[in-house]
Amino acid sequence: MTQRRTGVLSPVVTPFKKDLSPDTARWIRHCKWLLSQNVGLAVFGTNSEANSLSVDERIALLDRLVAAGVDTKRMMPGTGCCAIPDSVKLTAHAVKLGVGGVLMLPPFYYKGVSDDGLFAAFSEVIQRVGDARLKVYLYHIPPVANVPISLALIARLIKAYPDTVVGIKDSSGDWKNTEAMLKEFPGWGVFSGSELVLLEVMKLNGAGCISATANINPGAIHQLFADWQSPQAPTLQEKMNDLRLAVAKFPVIPALKQTIADHLDDPAWPTVRPPLTALTQEQIVGLRATLKDRGFTMPGIREIALQPAE
Amino acid sequence: MTQRRTGVLSPVVTPFKKDLSPDTARWIRHCKWLLSQNVGLAVFGTNSEANSLSVDERIALLDRLVAAGVDTKRMMPGTGCCAIPDSVKLTAHAVKLGVGGVLMLPPFYYKGVSDDGLFAAFSEVIQRVGDARLKVYLYHIPPVANVPISLALIARLIKAYPDTVVGIKDSSGDWKNTEAMLKEFPGWGVFSGSELVLLEVMKLNGAGCISATANINPGAIHQLFADWQSPQAPTLQEKMNDLRLAVAKFPVIPALKQTIADHLDDPAWPTVRPPLTALTQEQIVGLRATLKDRGFTMPGIREIALQPAE
Repeated sequence: MTQRRTGVLSPVVTPFKKDLSPDTARWIRHCKWLLSQNVGLAVFGTNSEANSLSVDERIALLDRLVAAGVDTKRMMPGTGCCAIPDSVKLTAHAVKLGVGGVLMLPPFYYKGVSDDGLFAAFSEVIQRVGDARLKVYLYHIPPVANVPISLALIARLIKAYPDTVVGIKDSSGDWKNTEAMLKEFPGWGVFSGSELVLLEVMKLNGAGCISATANINPGAIHQLFADWQSPQAPTLQEKMNDLRLAVAKFPVIPALKQTIADHLDDPAWPTVRPPLTALTQEQIVGLRATLKDRGFTMPGIREIALQPAE
Repeated sequence: MTQRRTGVLSPVVTPFKKDLSPDTARWIRHCKWLLSQNVGLAVFGTNSEANSLSVDERIALLDRLVAAGVDTKRMMPGTGCCAIPDSVKLTAHAVKLGVGGVLMLPPFYYKGVSDDGLFAAFSEVIQRVGDARLKVYLYHIPPVANVPISLALIARLIKAYPDTVVGIKDSSGDWKNTEAMLKEFPGWGVFSGSELVLLEVMKLNGAGCISATANINPGAIHQLFADWQSPQAPTLQEKMNDLRLAVAKFPVIPALKQTIADHLDDPAWPTVRPPLTALTQEQIVGLRATLKDRGFTMPGIREIALQPAE
């Protein structure tokens, strides 16, 4: 098995202009701020509204991020689509750019499909990309994709592609499942889909977490990742969970964007693509109070927002 | 309201070559056979494995079907994708070709989205296509898309776009829901997603049905549509349901393809794209027996298969 990647990554939220086209400059600045907080870039995740972007839009964004000088090794773009040709196109492009890995959803339209069918789908993409640099992190998110990735399927994929299928993001929200993955595949690249269980993940030799809240609270989450063996680790976990659970009372993607908008005094940030909707005025008021109560800050984000993106 | 479209349509299955690319010639011949049986072409539906095809693949297929001289008025391609730019591209292309209507899935990745969000998504596509020829049939298929289209949302869309949002395919599999649509929107274009309730749909002034089994049993389904007021209608319904329910004991998409393969002696037909899988040998044996027991035939399909596709 190749040396595994560890750390905290953010499924980077994607800002949109008024016409709903991607706001590349704001996006690149947000990526740069996240990197400054020691958090990697899981661009094109669920929280990125990635599936509301066409494949060509995702490719264009990735190219601009690379052109802006961002280290491709710090990127783990989501590349799993419903149609194999789309997944192949996006994955091959990302690999050619030198990304550190890709986060791959299963094809998510058809439900109740078999492990044989999902194995064939992942295999087809891996073989068509046909590049030894490809490092696949499977993306298990049954509450949204409604197409789970079973332990048996993981075992089969690791056996068939030991140097390629190197990890997973578990967004099941079910600790029992994450724990089973960590125990079944020791030393493999298991990321939890939330920081709520980061300390437990680290104790079981997991890889880290890829979490929505890392868009706004990256520093604290990375601190726990780095200091998980220190005496203050449980306190760090507790404090971070308090924030996460408070934010999760709101629709998460618009809440993240609203929080960034508020900290930048930038009314352009909250725009989402349909079918998502922005927060209501009442939700905005509630979210602001929630964050203020906790003395929440986003250190350094304003400074980076003042710099040129590219 | 413009004059509505009625009839039986087939969500045309898509044959693939060994390399999994679409087998255009076989596909066109199947379309021509369906038309010869008085059944319209809901190409790129769920049973077409449409979401396993890229947008460009769907556009290329549609162009070839038009080039083959097939009447565009008999086509109702599926054009709803997760990303608005994809839905716009595919819908605009189909409208430009002069299709009779499009069948539009809601964006289906994000779950638990609001009616406001779905209304905005459909609106955005309709407005960007910006063509008075666009006729949208909504596609309600909660068992697969997991994103339902509520009666309240339908009412809002009809009010906002009375000349554009002209109907729906209800694949909920829940007669109570289909009945509610028929009663709530009298004279509107309600198609059931299966022929199991076709007679009931017709009695309530519905538009017809768009059914998987119309790929193999089009003549009988159309006969009931045409003769629903005749004394033998209940018998026709019963006979057709017996076949439908027997076939539905197998995974439907591969079962349809296997049936076509068997009736054409054409081993190329059963190929599916992952994540779907072909029938097992045991299932094939069972399916053949099921059909043989019922004296099932596909009249005329061999003759059309011998003709040039284009």
